[in-house]
Amino acid sequence: MMLRSISFVALRPRTFARYCSSGGKITAPPMVYISGEEMTRYAMELIIEKWVKPRVDISAWEFYDLSCKNRDDTNDQVLHDAVEAGKRIGAIFKEPTITPTEVQRKSMGLKKAWGSPNGAMRRGWNGITISRDTIHIPGVQLGYKRPVLFERHAVGGEYGAGWKPVGRGKLVTQFFPAEGGMEATLTRTDFTVVDERDLNDQENVAVVYHNPLDNVADLAHHFFSRCYEAGVVPYVVTKKTVFKWQEGFWTVMKQVFDEHYKEKFTRAGLLDGSGELQHLISDAATMQIIRWTDGGFGMAAHNYDGDMLTDEVAQVHRSPGFITSNLIGKREDGTLIKEFEASHGTVADLWAAHLRGEETSFNPLGMITAIIGAINHAASLQGGNTMGAMSRSELVKAKKKAVEDEDYDEAKRLKEELVKLDAQASACKVTQFTAMLEKAVHTCFRVGEGTRDMVGPNGLTTEEFIDKVEVRLSRYLRGEEDPVEPDAVIVPERRDDPHYAVDSSAVKNMFDQYDLNGDGTIDAEEFEAMLVKLGVAPLLNVKAREQAAGEREAGQV
Amino acid sequence: MMLRSISFVALRPRTFARYCSSGGKITAPPMVYISGEEMTRYAMELIIEKWVKPRVDISAWEFYDLSCKNRDDTNDQVLHDAVEAGKRIGAIFKEPTITPTEVQRKSMGLKKAWGSPNGAMRRGWNGITISRDTIHIPGVQLGYKRPVLFERHAVGGEYGAGWKPVGRGKLVTQFFPAEGGMEATLTRTDFTVVDERDLNDQENVAVVYHNPLDNVADLAHHFFSRCYEAGVVPYVVTKKTVFKWQEGFWTVMKQVFDEHYKEKFTRAGLLDGSGELQHLISDAATMQIIRWTDGGFGMAAHNYDGDMLTDEVAQVHRSPGFITSNLIGKREDGTLIKEFEASHGTVADLWAAHLRGEETSFNPLGMITAIIGAINHAASLQGGNTMGAMSRSELVKAKKKAVEDEDYDEAKRLKEELVKLDAQASACKVTQFTAMLEKAVHTCFRVGEGTRDMVGPNGLTTEEFIDKVEVRLSRYLRGEEDPVEPDAVIVPERRDDPHYAVDSSAVKNMFDQYDLNGDGTIDAEEFEAMLVKLGVAPLLNVKAREQAAGEREAGQV
Repeated sequence: MMLRSISFVALRPRTFARYCSSGGKITAPPMVYISGEEMTRYAMELIIEKWVKPRVDISAWEFYDLSCKNRDDTNDQVLHDAVEAGKRIGAIFKEPTITPTEVQRKSMGLKKAWGSPNGAMRRGWNGITISRDTIHIPGVQLGYKRPVLFERHAVGGEYGAGWKPVGRGKLVTQFFPAEGGMEATLTRTDFTVVDERDLNDQENVAVVYHNPLDNVADLAHHFFSRCYEAGVVPYVVTKKTVFKWQEGFWTVMKQVFDEHYKEKFTRAGLLDGSGELQHLISDAATMQIIRWTDGGFGMAAHNYDGDMLTDEVAQVHRSPGFITSNLIGKREDGTLIKEFEASHGTVADLWAAHLRGEETSFNPLGMITAIIGAINHAASLQGGNTMGAMSRSELVKAKKKAVEDEDYDEAKRLKEELVKLDAQASACKVTQFTAMLEKAVHTCFRVGEGTRDMVGPNGLTTEEFIDKVEVRLSRYLRGEEDPVEPDAVIVPERRDDPHYAVDSSAVKNMFDQYDLNGDGTIDAEEFEAMLVKLGVAPLLNVKAREQAAGEREAGQV
Repeated sequence: MMLRSISFVALRPRTFARYCSSGGKITAPPMVYISGEEMTRYAMELIIEKWVKPRVDISAWEFYDLSCKNRDDTNDQVLHDAVEAGKRIGAIFKEPTITPTEVQRKSMGLKKAWGSPNGAMRRGWNGITISRDTIHIPGVQLGYKRPVLFERHAVGGEYGAGWKPVGRGKLVTQFFPAEGGMEATLTRTDFTVVDERDLNDQENVAVVYHNPLDNVADLAHHFFSRCYEAGVVPYVVTKKTVFKWQEGFWTVMKQVFDEHYKEKFTRAGLLDGSGELQHLISDAATMQIIRWTDGGFGMAAHNYDGDMLTDEVAQVHRSPGFITSNLIGKREDGTLIKEFEASHGTVADLWAAHLRGEETSFNPLGMITAIIGAINHAASLQGGNTMGAMSRSELVKAKKKAVEDEDYDEAKRLKEELVKLDAQASACKVTQFTAMLEKAVHTCFRVGEGTRDMVGPNGLTTEEFIDKVEVRLSRYLRGEEDPVEPDAVIVPERRDDPHYAVDSSAVKNMFDQYDLNGDGTIDAEEFEAMLVKLGVAPLLNVKAREQAAGEREAGQV
């Protein structure tokens, strides 16, 4: 689910204040919290201490420490436990972790260079898709104007490839159907030859992978319902014109779309004028991501293409700090398992500065967006959406009466109803809390109380920012609004980001190049010429271009 | 070889005019000419008739008609013949061809939907790399300012994959070394298991491919010598941080570089300040291609990455019409086989207009660049570079004397020397011809006598352009120079390209968005903010970003 589905309009601070006026904390529903390392862990510890714990009872959260040290101490049992808990509970927040290199293994004194936990999580949670969307702050202009939603198929492709360097010889791939047993022996004859090829070079590397397709329909539903909710145009991206085996992905996506969504999208005018779900060839998509800076589109792609393309989306939308990374899986009972994380790493350079005693200014937006998503998903798993016909007091009365009547079956049923109702109320309260928290964070950025990557050298330190948000959050929780709402759209200077050092002399050269009449400014005409030259001008006839690309492709296989 | 290596400065028109003053034609060395279809075939027929035939004896060219009709009539024997001829002669020019769809097969009345000829050509010529470089016209600003060179490994990867849709079961891939024979039978036990995996979905597609590595050293030499000659910084692009089997490609590239090129590149200052050959992760490369609009870089990549990335290069450099597409292969004797073609297709829409009797304005630059490349390569295969110590008349005299002395071994040797010398002289003459032709074409574009995609609605028709170039070519061949050399750099409007219809209202929105102070112009400061926002600002610390990307990658596998 998109964060933007939590509308500020729906917030009633006064009501919320009343909820909590007794001084009691609200109860957070069960969630798995996976902690990581370095700067991101430090910041999250502060955030939990200052923002969450004073107001929310998080005793139902299960904590798993996925630091290298703890994985080493537990021989990675902690990873298995975290995966099991995630499967059981269904809502997971994860801080960035370190996958140690050999050098780090030695310096940390680890027994083993523990691999990335992602594989175990994707397998354990039956990963369907990694949703990577642009994060937007109302009133602050980042990259795309409107949301960009991305589904990257979480399984299959080269990420799970088997491979071996081999010499000259023959490579044979056989498939043994499960009906004959899952043992493949040389004596079985019920196989199909998938591929047989002569390798004539002295040095080769052989690569085998598979794309499982059973969960593509789930991906399709997740993708199209998100696109519809966000009001964006969906595209399916593959290289199927050349890689014919990718046709299956498209076929399933289109089937689901035509059967369940086409009518809705058509009515909403979300089909790019064509009236049909559109396919984009992967190489054409690399350019559209740069051209369509207005946003308002979604893309669903295979694993590797999704990796390449979401990296581009992240760059256009400022940096990976402003992109979500949510793994969507599915439990056997059909419940969606959702793991939320930031798209960035542990920010080792800021951590080193912090350890040296220097001031830091870390922007935790990606992690905050992630934990809010996880808490909200945990809440949505609580009790579902059905509200009973009776109020709480009516239920209590009815239960009392059932006990008096010695109708214990009914009393038991009513007791369960009450538990469910309380869970719903708690879930409702906790999502109101996260909405206020999100508003507090966003407003800080909007009014210039942000970190230095957003507001420049006068920005707040890591700790100051967390404190400022806390002040604002308290204000909202007391039912107070911001005194004055700022109107102007803030455009953060990307050059304030220490990781984004613009080469000013190169920029000057570019400017002179596009200032065709040399008058020191670029007018509207020069601007269009420039966009055209940079190859990022928005185009009218996307379809014609796509078709042309397809023809060229087909001729060049 | 790059076309730009033929320097205009080296031209001596008067000398050339003297060569041809006898009225005799110059002799083109043997070359394979593969003709194709539709608009591109029509234009090339005019070009050969008007520019080439009156001045060059092309009787040594071998022509192969790769139209669908002729492939059908000959049961594709013509493709086999063309491949054989290409291998024998080593220099090939190819017009765009059509790979018929099922619909086209029926409408053309073909027996079969003949597949793309590219596979047969890559195999037959032991394809190493597809070189795709930006085409530059002196004095005309297209996309990149300086050359961008690209090597796409011509073999391996998913383009040659075997695949099959399979259900639940086991997938086993075995390698049988050639020592045990090239027959893989179930009774052999001398195999290695490359991969063995359970497929648990009901629907899967299994994919197998291999990357042959023996020719990567050849690719490396071709790439680095081209980069050095063009003065551009080389990069190797892979996804090896995640796809570990791609390490081999990098290892070979780096070995060749360190052993043969590092010192030269270091001395020339072509190593990006690092002193080492640089590796770029493929997803980072997608952004650099857009950022580095100054050009001056080269990239070498695997097959699929090369496909994705060169498409981006083509877009930034205006369109595929301004990008070369040259297949470099190798004969058993070590001779490089080079096939030159345009990056675009048969331009069906203009052909339809032509057939309707309408005026067309087709820009043949890509094909002209290709045929000039092919002729020059054919010339370079003639006689090599060694010039004998004796002049022609001395050789004739010496041969005469040898015959008188009845020293027939020496006479035979001198006869061969003479043949070689004549071939060299002819090769020299033909490359002078192509240089003048290139200059005539380029100058036409520069002085506004171009096609409509380049100079707007007042541009020339297909036929007028060919005539204008012919006039200029004749002038150069007579030893005359252009009266006045235009100084100004021409910036062709991309919106004149009918395939590039800019969405003006979207552009207007963008302009307003970047005109932060709303004064109707974008000043230098707003310009930098815009570049930064678009994510295309040139950056200082490429290395730091690459490193950060690598870390993130490693954590996200």
